Amino acid sequence: MNDTATTMTSRRDRVFNFSPGPAMLPTAVLERIRDELLDWNGTGCGVMEVSHRGKEFTALIDRARADLAALLGIPENYRILFLQGGATQQFAQIPLNLLPAGNCADYLVTGAWSQKALNEARRVAGNEVVIRCAGSTASENFTRIPRRDEIDAAPEAAYFHLCTNETIHGVEVFDEDDLFPSGTPLIADMSSHLLSRPIEVSRYGLIYAGAQKNIGPAGLCIVIVRDDLIGRARPGIPALFDYAVQAENDSMLNTPPTFAIYAASLVFQWLLEQGGLPAIEEINREKARRLYAAIDDSGGFYHNPVAPEVRSRMNVPFTLADTALEPSFIGTARESGLLALKGHKSVGGIRASIYNAMPLEGIDALIDFMRDFQKRFG
Amino acid sequence: MNDTATTMTSRRDRVFNFSPGPAMLPTAVLERIRDELLDWNGTGCGVMEVSHRGKEFTALIDRARADLAALLGIPENYRILFLQGGATQQFAQIPLNLLPAGNCADYLVTGAWSQKALNEARRVAGNEVVIRCAGSTASENFTRIPRRDEIDAAPEAAYFHLCTNETIHGVEVFDEDDLFPSGTPLIADMSSHLLSRPIEVSRYGLIYAGAQKNIGPAGLCIVIVRDDLIGRARPGIPALFDYAVQAENDSMLNTPPTFAIYAASLVFQWLLEQGGLPAIEEINREKARRLYAAIDDSGGFYHNPVAPEVRSRMNVPFTLADTALEPSFIGTARESGLLALKGHKSVGGIRASIYNAMPLEGIDALIDFMRDFQKRFG
Repeated sequence: MNDTATTMTSRRDRVFNFSPGPAMLPTAVLERIRDELLDWNGTGCGVMEVSHRGKEFTALIDRARADLAALLGIPENYRILFLQGGATQQFAQIPLNLLPAGNCADYLVTGAWSQKALNEARRVAGNEVVIRCAGSTASENFTRIPRRDEIDAAPEAAYFHLCTNETIHGVEVFDEDDLFPSGTPLIADMSSHLLSRPIEVSRYGLIYAGAQKNIGPAGLCIVIVRDDLIGRARPGIPALFDYAVQAENDSMLNTPPTFAIYAASLVFQWLLEQGGLPAIEEINREKARRLYAAIDDSGGFYHNPVAPEVRSRMNVPFTLADTALEPSFIGTARESGLLALKGHKSVGGIRASIYNAMPLEGIDALIDFMRDFQKRFG
Repeated sequence: MNDTATTMTSRRDRVFNFSPGPAMLPTAVLERIRDELLDWNGTGCGVMEVSHRGKEFTALIDRARADLAALLGIPENYRILFLQGGATQQFAQIPLNLLPAGNCADYLVTGAWSQKALNEARRVAGNEVVIRCAGSTASENFTRIPRRDEIDAAPEAAYFHLCTNETIHGVEVFDEDDLFPSGTPLIADMSSHLLSRPIEVSRYGLIYAGAQKNIGPAGLCIVIVRDDLIGRARPGIPALFDYAVQAENDSMLNTPPTFAIYAASLVFQWLLEQGGLPAIEEINREKARRLYAAIDDSGGFYHNPVAPEVRSRMNVPFTLADTALEPSFIGTARESGLLALKGHKSVGGIRASIYNAMPLEGIDALIDFMRDFQKRFG
């Protein structure tokens, strides 16, 4: 399943897809899915057709867990859960599991997604708890991360929630060591950058990520949760929402999204073949470096507003000095095989999402297009 | 996408898969998925890679809704939702949406799945409501459906819940007209037989079904809900659980399971090409007739315990007079390309799940095998 020169060519023959998610998947993974779609693993059936409790699928999910643990270096005292409902379900599930009556939780607001997490916590958590905003950069349009001295963390908080990569605003947290309170479980929405680089899992109480960026198809959410945070759910919450119930049942309280787990398992194998997260980080770093340099070196024709030290390596939003040109930029790019560059409707502009599956060639093609566009309209 | 002689051959060349779910899918559907896996609908991307909010996927989900409405004859005053979490999520979602404080709901228990629905309702619904068991055939091992005069329905109940096909116990409700209270919204778990035959949607307030039997891959749950039952959710439930929020957002409050919806849309098209539900019902009726006849005509070697008038056309459980032979039956069948015939662990024995995608040839192959096995061991 190596991404050989041949498969890179076949990818180039298709298009470069800058969608924020569901997003580009490695061509080698798609080819493998295609090749075994009607006969998986010698079963004579497609992987979509086999029982989740059969020995073949059980082996698959066990290997997926082991490969993910190897990629991220997940310590023994963490459980990996394969759930449904995306990050949005976690926005509700986290307070319902981890925030007992009489307690409070801290939320750092660094963009649209951490704001949604806070809103949903306030919606579901009830009147006997307090959901605190421990810091926000809303007044600066989310163009930076609050400094340590701007974060008002409650020492007694049950947890501290943050989004370590904001898909819409293009802000990524790199230095969580210095920023966040120690002693309080750190809960991180890593939906749009999990698996893009090594992380120190042991810094976190719980990590979660919707699959549809760097992991696999939509409909799967990965939760990595420390043992001591399992078993604290409020009584009477839906069984599916209880981390203890899901952990006891190996994520199979009911039928899990088997095809999405299978596709994710192939992505894990592909990443291991690429050299794991240190290797993919090198490529991602270079992709981001080239693209931000092209923006910064455009003499103001293109502009990214985010503080350089927290610019996301995954989601690169930018605007044109003449915003009236943006629809033409997006449309002409599409005609050139550079898809899905439209910024999120809440912020407008352009956004290039450049997840693991986006090859360096895609970045170079985008930069070439940007220079050409500037020549014609600048 | 017609199931031509060629594709039937390729199916036969594979295996016959009697899995209760995830289950066999039509070969023609799998072939189409395979053929367009890297380039769907001329986009240059796989369907897994495109944005759920783009015009291509929006057109897909709109067509899926229209095709499902056409197949089932869904009236205008119903909404079709594509959700996650399977039927198990609905077990919680239904009382959280439809059962206000001070009220009660009736549950008919006709097998393991309706029992689970009742248990989960009791878990989540709280102390200010009553979850009633309006009738049960547990004492008869769920081998029949309660008669009308055995059902104790509360006239004031907010709804009456039933499972119209019990996947484990092989009991199917055919005559809901006579059986159930009128005036109370009827809520039906149709997970394992939706789309196997025409139904009268207007008899129901809400119908739900996990996809992984007759519809598509696991990870998708279809909910068909009457307008007047939308907008009654308890305050403070997770946004994902509120039918009104999901309906307002066209099932896209967050990223839906796009690949599963795509696969389901192909199954809907395949069913329409087969002649719709009246045509598939004819085949399903004949498949069930042949298999039950083989059991009943075995002189007691094979035995199905369910009352003939409510025997499921989808899930056919049976035992061998000499239960010690069952492991050998299951293993030898597997070697003959007849897969996943083991009964559910809670009841043991054999179970043949014969959903829409199982061709008549698969039934005949199973019957041939049963006769041969009886000859050798009978």
